[in-house]
Amino acid sequence: MAPVYKVHYFDIHGRAEPIRWLLTYGNLKYEDVRYSSEDWAKFKPSTPLGQMPCLEVDGKIINQSTPICRYLGKIVGLGGKDEWENLLIDVAVENLGDLHKKIMEMAFEGDAAKKKTMEEDLVKKDLPFFLGKFDETAKKNGGYFALNRLTWADFMFTCAYETYKNVITPDVWSKYPNLLKVKDNVLKIQTLQDWIKKRPANKMFSKFDLKEEL
Amino acid sequence: MAPVYKVHYFDIHGRAEPIRWLLTYGNLKYEDVRYSSEDWAKFKPSTPLGQMPCLEVDGKIINQSTPICRYLGKIVGLGGKDEWENLLIDVAVENLGDLHKKIMEMAFEGDAAKKKTMEEDLVKKDLPFFLGKFDETAKKNGGYFALNRLTWADFMFTCAYETYKNVITPDVWSKYPNLLKVKDNVLKIQTLQDWIKKRPANKMFSKFDLKEEL
Repeated sequence: MAPVYKVHYFDIHGRAEPIRWLLTYGNLKYEDVRYSSEDWAKFKPSTPLGQMPCLEVDGKIINQSTPICRYLGKIVGLGGKDEWENLLIDVAVENLGDLHKKIMEMAFEGDAAKKKTMEEDLVKKDLPFFLGKFDETAKKNGGYFALNRLTWADFMFTCAYETYKNVITPDVWSKYPNLLKVKDNVLKIQTLQDWIKKRPANKMFSKFDLKEEL
Repeated sequence: MAPVYKVHYFDIHGRAEPIRWLLTYGNLKYEDVRYSSEDWAKFKPSTPLGQMPCLEVDGKIINQSTPICRYLGKIVGLGGKDEWENLLIDVAVENLGDLHKKIMEMAFEGDAAKKKTMEEDLVKKDLPFFLGKFDETAKKNGGYFALNRLTWADFMFTCAYETYKNVITPDVWSKYPNLLKVKDNVLKIQTLQDWIKKRPANKMFSKFDLKEEL
């Protein structure tokens, strides 16, 4: 019997979105459970570390979005064909994670003046460095984030791309044509297009939505 | 032919140590390359993101310690037997990573007064929360960090334990007997005991070394 999947998260894209995409891509039916702050307070003690997103699989609640995406990536055929290939996917995703951490620290900084300085630093230093490296890698990989073919790393990048277009003011992307190809290769997938058109609007960052680029 | 492995890192334990342990456990010969600051400046441009540790496999240089450990863990027989088991290992390691990030932010804080407050907060709040949860998990898993048996997650925990004993002033560990069992189960391994006795002394944190607990 097919496993019963539930995705538990706030009513936003964020860290649950690549999980939803992988389930969608794999035609795995899931319940998309979205919490208000009040409901989250009630559900929180049932989660392993008081964090979301969680994936529930036949009643077992699993936290940590990246391991969940790795797992689902393999289940839906977007993993490596051997452990060396899985290593290359994992490294690409972890490298993206290093940039993600810096960008989200800026995005969630409460002090406006400090946030502005952080964004300037990012745009001057970290973005050109990381995105430059990732663009080189995407070029070597024929428009994919790893392995010269579609993997779950491309989903991680494309969801991150949407977030970065929301939280970073200048449009930096024309400098990274190979990363745009990664995103385009993902957005070609019909089931994802359908999802992106019908999914609930992002309640956290709503300046940019990927549906504008379909 | 057996792959030629090199571990590239500073002359410290840190994030390379579980990599060295996994290679040691698997009887995989490797060159333990240790860099001074000057040598690192020369080597840095050859690394994927200007970061160490790196694992070199037949001339290919791979960064990101956790993906490297996941890869080696599988190669040496300390992975899961299927993707669900691999997920449970990955989640345990990522949960540890959440605590690790907080502890290392404190450890590397340059402002002494701020560092003291950060440590007090950790000891009051984050350590009891995370270590309490991890101890429960270790209890359920019969003295292992996941899966009721030895996996590469136990190596990650035990290396972290050594670091935490160095950077956290109070000795908190007697409250977490199941985590001490995880560490004891790892330190029972003869090849690791041999390595711990002969390895170069840690140049970064030298207050506590695991050899005291062999």
